[in-house]
Amino acid sequence: MKKPVIGLMLGDVTGIGPEIAAKLLASGVTNDLANVVVIGDRRVLDLGLRNAGVQLGYSVVPSVDAIRWPSEQLPLVDLGNVDPAKFPQGVSSAESGKLTGDTLKFMIDLAMAGKLDGICFAPLNKGAMHQGGWKFNDEHQMFAKLTDHSGFFGEMNVIKEFSTFRVTSHVALREAVNMISSERIESAIRLANDTLRSAGLARPRLGVAALNPHNGENGLFGDEEIRIIRPTVERLRATGVDCTGPISSDVIFIKARNGDYDGVVMMYHDQGQIATKLLGFSKGVTVTAGLKTVFTTPAHGTAYDIVGQGKADRGAMEHAFTIAAKMAASRLAARQ
Amino acid sequence: MKKPVIGLMLGDVTGIGPEIAAKLLASGVTNDLANVVVIGDRRVLDLGLRNAGVQLGYSVVPSVDAIRWPSEQLPLVDLGNVDPAKFPQGVSSAESGKLTGDTLKFMIDLAMAGKLDGICFAPLNKGAMHQGGWKFNDEHQMFAKLTDHSGFFGEMNVIKEFSTFRVTSHVALREAVNMISSERIESAIRLANDTLRSAGLARPRLGVAALNPHNGENGLFGDEEIRIIRPTVERLRATGVDCTGPISSDVIFIKARNGDYDGVVMMYHDQGQIATKLLGFSKGVTVTAGLKTVFTTPAHGTAYDIVGQGKADRGAMEHAFTIAAKMAASRLAARQ
Repeated sequence: MKKPVIGLMLGDVTGIGPEIAAKLLASGVTNDLANVVVIGDRRVLDLGLRNAGVQLGYSVVPSVDAIRWPSEQLPLVDLGNVDPAKFPQGVSSAESGKLTGDTLKFMIDLAMAGKLDGICFAPLNKGAMHQGGWKFNDEHQMFAKLTDHSGFFGEMNVIKEFSTFRVTSHVALREAVNMISSERIESAIRLANDTLRSAGLARPRLGVAALNPHNGENGLFGDEEIRIIRPTVERLRATGVDCTGPISSDVIFIKARNGDYDGVVMMYHDQGQIATKLLGFSKGVTVTAGLKTVFTTPAHGTAYDIVGQGKADRGAMEHAFTIAAKMAASRLAARQ
Repeated sequence: MKKPVIGLMLGDVTGIGPEIAAKLLASGVTNDLANVVVIGDRRVLDLGLRNAGVQLGYSVVPSVDAIRWPSEQLPLVDLGNVDPAKFPQGVSSAESGKLTGDTLKFMIDLAMAGKLDGICFAPLNKGAMHQGGWKFNDEHQMFAKLTDHSGFFGEMNVIKEFSTFRVTSHVALREAVNMISSERIESAIRLANDTLRSAGLARPRLGVAALNPHNGENGLFGDEEIRIIRPTVERLRATGVDCTGPISSDVIFIKARNGDYDGVVMMYHDQGQIATKLLGFSKGVTVTAGLKTVFTTPAHGTAYDIVGQGKADRGAMEHAFTIAAKMAASRLAARQ
């Protein structure tokens, strides 16, 4: 199988991103999975290596095109845009947020031109990006816009036990209820199925959550389960998708934790977030699913409380990289 | 402090109720907390003792009035209404459900007449009760009706780490969103405060959940937090209630688990149920809070899969009894 080219982005310079990226790169595990190229400022990588207390040889290359794989040393495309001396670590900066967005855009353009097969990025400071001029509700919408995406896409949350996919996300709960439709549910189930397949599962087992308490209690507490969710699940099941539901909110995550599902399709944001946060989502991974390019990132944030101390854990970053590499490899294979 | 009189009800005869009630009574811990009287059929208690493999002397009394406390032996008021020979264990029975409701009604009448200070009941079969003619959405509504209650009351869920209280409960999610009001939130916070005080906490620390994702993201994803929840929390806080909020759904249960709150006031059913079930609610306790009488029960059900095998755990039943005794004692003290 051809190794995908994964662009690694160091995250916002004010957080732990450079440190955990440096730890991941120094570990050497990335090379087994992908051809990895760092895109960013070499001074930020140097800062990360110092924070991490690790050493790593790398070579600055003028462009991704100039790399001959396999590369003897880690290649880095130096954008020269982020001077760490200007951004104290642990302090939010709108200017740093702007530059973070600039770097991501640069990488997305590379991916759209076929030079990168996937993007894995260390933690962003979303508030700083917004203040810095990247006015999106979340990074997924930014990526959708910059990849000229139309149609359904969405945030996927990966924890050890299972992954979640959303029928609705960053909207008021009232609006989420109004948005529940057969079309959206079908899109979310198909997205879950396709994404988990590209992550390596031959036939993902999907649980689809109910909207109302007690699964609507046979229509007594709402009829979306009867009118919308069940018929949609059954229709897709008949086409070969291994989906089951609707399943009561307070049962589905217990079953998923116990290994019954690979993916949970949830109707609204907090349904899944309550569960995944309690199950240790800070060690998990966030994926933007359904776009032309693969995007993954650790679920945790910039962790200003421990920045610069060398004690940030690279686990979630490594998991994010692994998922990006797997999904990108699977897409490459499908294209051949 | 005067010991409260707690009526113990053996649950539906087809489930593990008689067994765990027998185990609890044989352990002797109930006597330290309360004057306990069993109300039900002596044959059902005998069945429970056999299932549990324990021995216990008890004396049949004609009425609660006839008991002279402290009673040398466990007193039992024999209703003679449930013949275990007619109800195979592990099989749901509408007739048994009807009789379960009859026994509960008998006990509620005693409590309303001042003969019992609290009621602790072993697991019911709610479906069987409904089929048997007790047509309520849940047992809490049945208890409210039978105690002639008007005004706010609600289900309280107790786990090791914290308790939850509900602004809305068994209604469609769409309706729950429409029901969110300052009045209901105030009622739920006051109910949480009063109930936890009566359970022994001098000044309960209450967290109040948000309705919308990301706590409404400053109004971007819904404005109930700004218009309704925050002003209500602040108003009550100014009157001395130790309440904080609104707090994002995917944060509040992490904080509560870590010990930041004694009680969580949730806006809708599944918000709390997703969290408490994942944290082990099957070992917890359900309380009907806000009625004239204290009602407690284990959170788990009749466990037909292990009935009659002697291996049912009495832990949640004991916890339920302890809470009933504490709350009833506190009410007695307040009345004196």
